[in-house]
Amino acid sequence: DGIGMARLAWSRLPTADGAAPLPEGPAASAPAQDELFVGAVESLDYEVIENYAYREEQAQRSKFWVPYYIMLKWFFALLIGVGTGLAAIFINLAVENFSGWKFTLTFAIIQHSYFVGFLVYILLNLALVFSSVYIVTQFAPAAAGSGIPEIKGYLNGVDTHGILLFRTLVGKIFGSIGSVGGGLALGKEGPLVHTGACIASLLGQGGSAKYHLNSRWVQIFESDRDRRDLVTCGCAAGVAAAFRAPVGGVLFALEEVTSWWRSHLMWRVFFTSAVVAVVVRSAMNWCDSGKCGHFGAGGFIIWDISGGQEDYSYQELLPVAIIGVIGGLLGALFNQLTLYITKWRRTYLHKKGKRVQIFEACLISLITSTVSFVLPLLRKCSPCPELETNSGIQCPHPPGTDGNFVNFYCSKDNEYNDLATIFFNSQDDAIRNLFSAKTFHEYSAQSLITFLVMFYSLAVVTFGTAVPAGQFVPGIMIGSTYGRLVGMSVVKFYKKLNVDEGTYALLGAASFLGGSMRMTVSLCVIMVEITNNLQLLPLIMLVLLISKAVGDFFNEGLYEEQARLKGIPLLDSRPKQVMRNMNAKDACKNQKVVCLPRVSRVVDIVSVLQSNKHNGFPIVERGQNGESLVIGLILRSHLLVLLQSKVDFQNTPFPCGPGILNRHNFSDFVKPASSKGKSIDDIHLTDEELGLYLDLAPFLNPSPYIVPEDMSLAKV
Amino acid sequence: DGIGMARLAWSRLPTADGAAPLPEGPAASAPAQDELFVGAVESLDYEVIENYAYREEQAQRSKFWVPYYIMLKWFFALLIGVGTGLAAIFINLAVENFSGWKFTLTFAIIQHSYFVGFLVYILLNLALVFSSVYIVTQFAPAAAGSGIPEIKGYLNGVDTHGILLFRTLVGKIFGSIGSVGGGLALGKEGPLVHTGACIASLLGQGGSAKYHLNSRWVQIFESDRDRRDLVTCGCAAGVAAAFRAPVGGVLFALEEVTSWWRSHLMWRVFFTSAVVAVVVRSAMNWCDSGKCGHFGAGGFIIWDISGGQEDYSYQELLPVAIIGVIGGLLGALFNQLTLYITKWRRTYLHKKGKRVQIFEACLISLITSTVSFVLPLLRKCSPCPELETNSGIQCPHPPGTDGNFVNFYCSKDNEYNDLATIFFNSQDDAIRNLFSAKTFHEYSAQSLITFLVMFYSLAVVTFGTAVPAGQFVPGIMIGSTYGRLVGMSVVKFYKKLNVDEGTYALLGAASFLGGSMRMTVSLCVIMVEITNNLQLLPLIMLVLLISKAVGDFFNEGLYEEQARLKGIPLLDSRPKQVMRNMNAKDACKNQKVVCLPRVSRVVDIVSVLQSNKHNGFPIVERGQNGESLVIGLILRSHLLVLLQSKVDFQNTPFPCGPGILNRHNFSDFVKPASSKGKSIDDIHLTDEELGLYLDLAPFLNPSPYIVPEDMSLAKV
Repeated sequence: DGIGMARLAWSRLPTADGAAPLPEGPAASAPAQDELFVGAVESLDYEVIENYAYREEQAQRSKFWVPYYIMLKWFFALLIGVGTGLAAIFINLAVENFSGWKFTLTFAIIQHSYFVGFLVYILLNLALVFSSVYIVTQFAPAAAGSGIPEIKGYLNGVDTHGILLFRTLVGKIFGSIGSVGGGLALGKEGPLVHTGACIASLLGQGGSAKYHLNSRWVQIFESDRDRRDLVTCGCAAGVAAAFRAPVGGVLFALEEVTSWWRSHLMWRVFFTSAVVAVVVRSAMNWCDSGKCGHFGAGGFIIWDISGGQEDYSYQELLPVAIIGVIGGLLGALFNQLTLYITKWRRTYLHKKGKRVQIFEACLISLITSTVSFVLPLLRKCSPCPELETNSGIQCPHPPGTDGNFVNFYCSKDNEYNDLATIFFNSQDDAIRNLFSAKTFHEYSAQSLITFLVMFYSLAVVTFGTAVPAGQFVPGIMIGSTYGRLVGMSVVKFYKKLNVDEGTYALLGAASFLGGSMRMTVSLCVIMVEITNNLQLLPLIMLVLLISKAVGDFFNEGLYEEQARLKGIPLLDSRPKQVMRNMNAKDACKNQKVVCLPRVSRVVDIVSVLQSNKHNGFPIVERGQNGESLVIGLILRSHLLVLLQSKVDFQNTPFPCGPGILNRHNFSDFVKPASSKGKSIDDIHLTDEELGLYLDLAPFLNPSPYIVPEDMSLAKV
Repeated sequence: DGIGMARLAWSRLPTADGAAPLPEGPAASAPAQDELFVGAVESLDYEVIENYAYREEQAQRSKFWVPYYIMLKWFFALLIGVGTGLAAIFINLAVENFSGWKFTLTFAIIQHSYFVGFLVYILLNLALVFSSVYIVTQFAPAAAGSGIPEIKGYLNGVDTHGILLFRTLVGKIFGSIGSVGGGLALGKEGPLVHTGACIASLLGQGGSAKYHLNSRWVQIFESDRDRRDLVTCGCAAGVAAAFRAPVGGVLFALEEVTSWWRSHLMWRVFFTSAVVAVVVRSAMNWCDSGKCGHFGAGGFIIWDISGGQEDYSYQELLPVAIIGVIGGLLGALFNQLTLYITKWRRTYLHKKGKRVQIFEACLISLITSTVSFVLPLLRKCSPCPELETNSGIQCPHPPGTDGNFVNFYCSKDNEYNDLATIFFNSQDDAIRNLFSAKTFHEYSAQSLITFLVMFYSLAVVTFGTAVPAGQFVPGIMIGSTYGRLVGMSVVKFYKKLNVDEGTYALLGAASFLGGSMRMTVSLCVIMVEITNNLQLLPLIMLVLLISKAVGDFFNEGLYEEQARLKGIPLLDSRPKQVMRNMNAKDACKNQKVVCLPRVSRVVDIVSVLQSNKHNGFPIVERGQNGESLVIGLILRSHLLVLLQSKVDFQNTPFPCGPGILNRHNFSDFVKPASSKGKSIDDIHLTDEELGLYLDLAPFLNPSPYIVPEDMSLAKV
């Protein structure tokens, strides 16, 4: 009757078998009990806290241990900040230089032949995308996608296999460079969050165990909590590096990814974000002196909308609300379409192996390259507008530099191709151009609609391919396109207002991200940090409120949907309404909790572990009057450790004496950070060993959480 | 054996007797039990969730109830934002105009006679302070102080009597105007947080019950959680209004005041803050047109440091670190001194009645006025520096306007008195002058040190008088003074650097607040929002890291110390290290939990309630084999409701049938929002009634939280 409870507790428990933690079959055996007790434990830290081994370990620690531990925590926060900052700089420089070279080369060739240019452009993109998909499929399958749902799951208590490995980190970094540099409709921001988390986790372990980088002296982050704290810092660092928004990074980690949050952690996370800001800023200063390649500096200044609209009037609230509604609708549609496509891909395509995945990514690259090259060709060029001499904007801007007004397939020199300005360009430049202020009427409505439809389709199709892929940049591009469209009509209708199309593009970007990811505070703060203008906060907030409400009407957020699809059960911080009308017994249905006697035969333990997927087992003992008493709870993972070490096996079915724990170290029971964990199938015991006994008393948690059968599920 | 647990749970439980919730005497009776169970409940919402009355209430609600409830929540967030914004505007305008008139009048009179001017200045200040202290002592004793410790306690689960009443709100608003306008060394920002909380709580109740403003239809915020959510919104709104920092407000509520936090709530809190920002901004626009009095506009632009230092070099890290250390030391000293003074005041002074409190405040007002008038008189004037013509700074500035370079008791017209510029001025103007950029060498070190010593002493003495008093502004003034001192020496030593003294003043302010209040992220964000310059974030963070660490070495934060002094037990979000080595039994010592049988005699219930201060009582029943079983937990407050209504008393000692609950409404059991609550002494029963029985089964919570005796205290 108690198993549903164990099941509920499951998603918080470190599971032994990865992403499929729900027990499936009915349970094996359940001794009679007066009342039903089920213990659920929150994290390893708490589980073993009453364990004698832990107490001894604690006692052995000197009085300098606590200061050392705190200092090390802060030192690691610093390291994570520096590491993530450097990774972001590396990815940025590589992407900027690759796509810079690509576009310069293509522009140079099309002066002679558009066809050759087209071929070179397609092949370069294909090569980059191929490198990315090859790395990911061959070496680091966990590096595909954005990684945010997996990290969210990890911080909620569910380990997905391999997400925090060293190879995943490498795959993520180089894969991102290939996929973003190759011009696919995806971004590098989501992967940066995953990169930050990997760096944090690897630092916490003292390096990768597999590649012999493990150093023993830093391995004091043994508890799940410490590890999760580090990963939280890493996530915030990733966002801070991606958007140069330290406060936004903290709030992202707080709102979107973590499940457990403490004030102390917040300050450490903030410190990490600030370190990232310093590192990135230093790199930008360094790049300003031209030392990091011709195109290097561009990637950091993601959106420079200085000179945009400073203020707003109340008449603008209506168009802004319309942007919110559009964002909610398009965002919800995006979530739904990507959900269908991911399901379809999983069922029909990715079963067929890595080659199909590689072929798929290359095909999408070909389509993307063709569309982004050919569509601008079909578009008629417009004459350059009259520009103020000191505005710093050139029309057409010289090839090989970034800026508005790209001259592409134009008959005259003083013309520009508005579709090429956003489509045949690197994404960072395209966003900058869409957001650019003081460029009224640069884009025709026709070009923007064409771009919106094509890019939306490309983004949906690209989502779910086996390359590292963030949804921030596609979302921003889609959103800013329709935002600018709305801005154009506002300029047309309210002629007297001080309206800037670039600001509307920004609001559009916010609305699409709000409608798709359903982030609120963190997104708002990121947008404010980007614009560096608090005056726009109410507008951004209005847009987000509406787009989130509209989106929520249709479906869940992108990350939640993807997490569910990947089999990661996320436990909400607040119980659902339906749980209030159920109690623990209802949730359990006919499944029973599985108990073990204090001194069990090894063969019984093995059969219990094989016959179900439960993660914790209450230990019962007969009382003086013959009733069964629950004396504690033992975890599957600890049982596996005991079975593997074999040193505790005994011949008699009687309780052992004290002192048995000297055979074990506290660290034996520590969960491995990012490996698959042990399985009962990996443990091989001889028939003789199977016949022995094991006294579980020294290893159990004597005071697990206990709930009565009729407790409301919400309270459980 | 279980009472310590009940005691621990206490601080989360809504207590019946306000701020002294710890049981004192040994417990009365404890029936024999197999195992010891103690139930602790988090909030009223959870307590009654399994109550049948609640379920029926839920069932009666139509399907439109949930959307209505959600809409109402957001509507209330809007109302709280508007209300707090308007309150902030009102306070600001009143303070600015009062002190504006005061200084204009004084300056006009001192053209003729310094002595008459001095008398007028002193008497005006005295009148304002007297009005404040009179309002507070006579009508709203809970309005004294900043109110932040009490609000923190409320959100942690401990209700202090009267903090959220309508009269407290009125006392806070008008008391603030008097005390700040009267020139005392305190600020209006802390009280604004309390004001926001009061507005939120009163709106949630649908008005004040006492003054017949209660409206029934909005009273759906019946659960403690909903009320606490509203108060959280109010706190954030208060900070947002005080510093015009919406993000800072959210983070302040998150970091400093709330104990329970959910992602959904965050978004609502953020919305409230943004509404405040819009309201305040509209008011500022309105004031710009001169409609809100001659001096009205000044109060909103708290710190205008535009034109300050944009960037920093690595050589500046050392002086910045020194500022951090000074801030930590002075902040910790401030906390310690105020702690002693508050203790002394409580022991010797405030016992003697309201008159002593009024006299004390008036005396401090006299001292403050005298010091701020006489000290500048003793200071020699300096000649005006050469100013750029387009800098907008005048020397001396015309009397009756705000600005640097005050001409006070100077022999020549083109001279200014640097001490008068900061001392003989309203605090907002003084801070603006201390923060002002491009005014190198305006202040002499001698003046700044004089001001620092005097103002620090005044702030310590003023702390704890019976007037509404915030510690933000005094902290900022103290901090910016030594910050500017450090800035002056930096200018002297590193001559080539682009250093601005105003920026150092800002860092100093951050360091003192960090060293005293120990806020981290929220303070950092507030400072960033004020400067509107993210480049300075790493410097502010460095300062705060150091000052908090230094301060933590000596004592606790200001709010924690004051809360402890006021007898508000705050439960940390993370258990202390010492709790890990104790279990529930250790914590209970020799105190026992008090149980009641299912059907109790009324006289027994009354004697149990009178003999102890426990807040919850397990209900036991005899099982079939004669063992006692715990069937649930009943709260003191619910017992009191039953005793008062008397309708459930029965003649027989046997369980009653179903249907008894029809006699009660769910709302009967709702805790009153901000009254003292019922006490057993208020309930009068006849001897006949005392002899009757009461079946507690329908009213108990059948599944309370249960912990075994040997569970670690950290886990409990």
